[in-house]
Amino acid sequence: MNAIGRLIQPRSVAIIGASADASKTAGRPVSYLLKHGYAGHIYPVNPKVSQIGDLKCYPDIASLPEVPDVAIVLLGAERAHVAVRELSARGTAAAIVLASGYTETGELGAQRQRELLEAAGSMRLLGPNTIGLVNLTDKIVLSATGALEMDTFPVGSIGVVSQSGGILGSLLSRAAARGIGLSKLISTSNEVDLELADFIDHLVDDEATKVIALYVETIRNPAKFRAAALRAAQAGKPIVAFKIGRSEAGAKAAVSHTGAMAGADRMYDALFRQVGVIRANTFADLLDIPAALQTGRRLQGRRVAILTSTGGAGTLVSDDLGMVGFETPAPDSATAEALRALQTGDHAVLDRNPIDVTLAGLRPDLLRGAIKALLSSPGYDALVIIVGSSSLAMPELMAGAIQDCLPLSDKPVLAYVSPHAPEVAALLTQRGVPAFAAAESCSAALSALLHRSTWQAPQAAETVAKPVQVDALPSGSLDEAQAKQLFAKFKVPCAPERVVCTPAEAQQAARELGGRVVLKILSADITHKSDVGGVAVNLTPETIADRMASMSLQVQAHTNTKPERFLVQQMVSGGTEVILGTSRDALGTAILLGMGGVTAELFQDTSLRLLPEHGGLSREEALGMAHELKTWPLLNGYRGRPSADVDALVDAIVAFSNMAAQLGDRLLEAEINPIFVLPQGQGVQAADGVLVLA
Amino acid sequence: MNAIGRLIQPRSVAIIGASADASKTAGRPVSYLLKHGYAGHIYPVNPKVSQIGDLKCYPDIASLPEVPDVAIVLLGAERAHVAVRELSARGTAAAIVLASGYTETGELGAQRQRELLEAAGSMRLLGPNTIGLVNLTDKIVLSATGALEMDTFPVGSIGVVSQSGGILGSLLSRAAARGIGLSKLISTSNEVDLELADFIDHLVDDEATKVIALYVETIRNPAKFRAAALRAAQAGKPIVAFKIGRSEAGAKAAVSHTGAMAGADRMYDALFRQVGVIRANTFADLLDIPAALQTGRRLQGRRVAILTSTGGAGTLVSDDLGMVGFETPAPDSATAEALRALQTGDHAVLDRNPIDVTLAGLRPDLLRGAIKALLSSPGYDALVIIVGSSSLAMPELMAGAIQDCLPLSDKPVLAYVSPHAPEVAALLTQRGVPAFAAAESCSAALSALLHRSTWQAPQAAETVAKPVQVDALPSGSLDEAQAKQLFAKFKVPCAPERVVCTPAEAQQAARELGGRVVLKILSADITHKSDVGGVAVNLTPETIADRMASMSLQVQAHTNTKPERFLVQQMVSGGTEVILGTSRDALGTAILLGMGGVTAELFQDTSLRLLPEHGGLSREEALGMAHELKTWPLLNGYRGRPSADVDALVDAIVAFSNMAAQLGDRLLEAEINPIFVLPQGQGVQAADGVLVLA
Repeated sequence: MNAIGRLIQPRSVAIIGASADASKTAGRPVSYLLKHGYAGHIYPVNPKVSQIGDLKCYPDIASLPEVPDVAIVLLGAERAHVAVRELSARGTAAAIVLASGYTETGELGAQRQRELLEAAGSMRLLGPNTIGLVNLTDKIVLSATGALEMDTFPVGSIGVVSQSGGILGSLLSRAAARGIGLSKLISTSNEVDLELADFIDHLVDDEATKVIALYVETIRNPAKFRAAALRAAQAGKPIVAFKIGRSEAGAKAAVSHTGAMAGADRMYDALFRQVGVIRANTFADLLDIPAALQTGRRLQGRRVAILTSTGGAGTLVSDDLGMVGFETPAPDSATAEALRALQTGDHAVLDRNPIDVTLAGLRPDLLRGAIKALLSSPGYDALVIIVGSSSLAMPELMAGAIQDCLPLSDKPVLAYVSPHAPEVAALLTQRGVPAFAAAESCSAALSALLHRSTWQAPQAAETVAKPVQVDALPSGSLDEAQAKQLFAKFKVPCAPERVVCTPAEAQQAARELGGRVVLKILSADITHKSDVGGVAVNLTPETIADRMASMSLQVQAHTNTKPERFLVQQMVSGGTEVILGTSRDALGTAILLGMGGVTAELFQDTSLRLLPEHGGLSREEALGMAHELKTWPLLNGYRGRPSADVDALVDAIVAFSNMAAQLGDRLLEAEINPIFVLPQGQGVQAADGVLVLA
Repeated sequence: MNAIGRLIQPRSVAIIGASADASKTAGRPVSYLLKHGYAGHIYPVNPKVSQIGDLKCYPDIASLPEVPDVAIVLLGAERAHVAVRELSARGTAAAIVLASGYTETGELGAQRQRELLEAAGSMRLLGPNTIGLVNLTDKIVLSATGALEMDTFPVGSIGVVSQSGGILGSLLSRAAARGIGLSKLISTSNEVDLELADFIDHLVDDEATKVIALYVETIRNPAKFRAAALRAAQAGKPIVAFKIGRSEAGAKAAVSHTGAMAGADRMYDALFRQVGVIRANTFADLLDIPAALQTGRRLQGRRVAILTSTGGAGTLVSDDLGMVGFETPAPDSATAEALRALQTGDHAVLDRNPIDVTLAGLRPDLLRGAIKALLSSPGYDALVIIVGSSSLAMPELMAGAIQDCLPLSDKPVLAYVSPHAPEVAALLTQRGVPAFAAAESCSAALSALLHRSTWQAPQAAETVAKPVQVDALPSGSLDEAQAKQLFAKFKVPCAPERVVCTPAEAQQAARELGGRVVLKILSADITHKSDVGGVAVNLTPETIADRMASMSLQVQAHTNTKPERFLVQQMVSGGTEVILGTSRDALGTAILLGMGGVTAELFQDTSLRLLPEHGGLSREEALGMAHELKTWPLLNGYRGRPSADVDALVDAIVAFSNMAAQLGDRLLEAEINPIFVLPQGQGVQAADGVLVLA
């Protein structure tokens, strides 16, 4: 067993700074371990005490009779590192440091935290500033916090890892009240060493855990997180994450216009999506969704039967399911026939959905018959049972009847409890029917179940692109011509163009390029060329010289500098403008695709993919980005428009992503705005470009 | 007291079909009335029973010793109307018919319901198919349903009216568990007579009611609802409505393209907004929001202080508040100073928000000090207090401390309870601090409080427009020229145009109109002119004759008919295209404004206003419609575009709405797509038009 395994399932626990008074914080760890019948060795350490209950108390770490698997360090921040050093020296697998007063308090605390890590050496550390962990499977509490302690734990198969200790306590008490069973609860907090990904990795191998729930404030090591999450996906263990910091989306300033559209929260969204993590939209979802996933039942489609004995609540659930794309079709004729055969009474509504068996249908045998008919109906993929106030009189009978039917099918069965009846909901949940008091919870749970059965890991790029030979690159902003030359090297098609200095050169260039041309000033310093009068379109060899002269004056008036170089570019027409850019932050580098034009800009219609660890995006992912745009129809023949050359766009996205991957940390910013997507078979053409290198 | 008043606060109640067995449904009404000490007269009616408990039981309605204020009719649908007729004949104020088997079951039931109404004559009816009502203020239960009965009612100031009986029971049990006090609970169900609006109207005058909560399935009489809702707004009693049928939005087919964009649910949205009804987005909001509103506290801005003793939950609430536009700024220096003076311990975080007083700050005196400092701070408009697991040990002390501070200010104070602790939440709510277990509830409650303090009834049009003299109008689709002539009569500016039949006339028209022109076929039958090749732009007097010839052939090829009439229209350029249309359904006629162009269409960027009872929209409302478009910046000088002539657009919307108002039921469909909004000072020009009359 590795160190993390020993941390979670220790054969022996030392409590450094244990108190004999169980009512004190320092007395709690020993008392919690004893209370739940911990079978391993408990070694309290305290020089002032010789005995705690029946346990011998040791004066110091050196005198412990064996090397403990785990030590809970109860000392304050000013002394914890001393104990940690001694524990490490003795070969302890892992220590839990509860003290606060580290990075969360400022620079002095950060210094302390570095010392703590250094003192730990090869020993693993949980914390500091953590409330510890609870192994519910084995009933081992490694904590001094009342919020992680209860008389009976709700044992089940959801492993929870939280970066906030307080939230962990909240989840535990909420799960217990709802009959939702947990396997492990771990608070990672400051994460000086062990972090989210370490525990995901561990829980993937933990037999007792079927679903992993995360409360995330930040991901310190995205690569490690990505690897652990993909391992979980391969193992068929879904991860559900609630991440705060959503409303700070867009707060981080970005140099480029599209970069600014993608806030940091969108980067998390992309990361989660790319590794199959289900994002909980509300804190409540962080229990609701795992409660549904841990049943292991499979949702294969969007058709939901709603079985009720009361009209209003059935309609409420149906309405909400419709909001997230589920369907509630009427029973097919065979199913309606089977329901009618149950003879649930004159007023029963059996040819519509919600299927209302009325009060008369609340007998367990009839309920069993109705559930059986609906679960075996080929017209339904899932069943939601409404619990009304009249069902409350017979919770055991109802729960039993439903439970009996579960083995008939592996379709998901959920319950919505309409009146306030938490004990009934808990009973149902314990019996394998996740029960919710909010229609939105049913919708979130079913959406997650559908995600689970449809998500596939994004294909890696077919081959990692061969490195492109690039000359020694300068630092700073490239000018437009340089930027496009680099894009072109990576096989992003660019509109043909010439760099010119004189009117005669411009005329010559216009003639060579043919058709109408665009004239722009060429400068690495001026990014907003239009704002200074530095762009003119629709020019011919005849008009370009005069226009160049007037542009020169206008730009000079704006910038006090006479422009020396110009770009003559073939004018692109007949295409759809899109924007291709990069977005970078602590989570990595993302490729960003946006629809061009002011209207799409107002709707922030962009899609985002993080670059994988190695290489660029696959064609499949690039196409996925285009499909994700709300304005995708504009590329797809909407209202008689010509279909755009999506293949060429996909090639360009892949090429651009390969460039970003190869340039790595040297790439500070890249944007092509616009790149024209021409009609099918005619390719794409980049018509502008920004590139900033470190 | 009127009949509804006597229904809700009766001096005497007759129970038709009462049973002596309190465990039977028919025995419940008497038992419920007695149990809560009903002070009025109770008259059971049943020919087979002479006595129910201490009460004399009457053989029939005729033998009742006085005319009852209210009768609860417990008979089935086949006999209820007989009793109703007798009750009416005796002059009973109102009857409650509990039986089902009416419109909800089909045509036979609908016939029964009509008979029931006829039998009632001038007596008011609640139901049928209702579970009755509870007057919590006076502890009067008029129901036979267990779901509306409990030992102690949560008495307070929220009046609830529900179109579903089951939902009413759910709301009552949920409110009771949460310490949320109610005044009246009424289930209107089939609404053969008394409906939502009647009870809104009553509750506006009910002293015990401060907030009205509605569960809405449909609004049968929009005009009456509108009037009642506006009366409530004037009386300062907010209405909160949860309406189902949201996912059927867009299901109703509409002839015109923009009509299709606006589903029926959007019509409700518009209605609610126009009369100041706060829409609950979730069923939970239907209790959460009234719980906050009934405190009567006022929110004047968006700056919220979060006071916590635990980090995680404070961040969670702050994050969610940010999602709906609230701000959580750090304390100003004076406030931070006041907090520091409390000496809540070394680790307290007092210069940030959430303001973390840590465990040390959980003493009532310190809590009182902190709340006082935050409530009196000019930097905050509201306070959210986080209840963590460590607060649970002292709920009374905490609640008391918070309650003591409430009189210091009328800023809203809410609580978020992080662990599972429903009893603590209920206690706080009862003490005047609405407490929630979801961050989203805090956000919804604060949003509603802000709505309440900022909503103003839409100004009626300055003057109801004078009727426009229109000639006898034909029925059916008008052709484009006729439609625009009618628009123009109502003062919607249209692009100059001429109807022509020959190439020579077309040339002449093009010359007269000047500049470039558009040529279109003119037909009342062909609505999609472009699809049959019937539109050509950018023509001159020189090119128009040839183009007319080729168009004629092309249209003939598509339609097998040679077009006989054409429209030559001045070509409009340089404007922003918007769409103006109508949308009609059971709720009334709405005016719809949409941004033109395919991109905006993909985002369904439209805004909607229902016409008032008389006349068209006011300029203020028309401007509001334009502001509501997500693409409003396109009209407002976005990215260097010229500002559009919004004044002229507003005039056109008002003119169009006046037309819709005057045409009334004769108007089946009207659409101008597009109307060009030209740069400031240059007006608007309708460039196409559809009008269908009954």
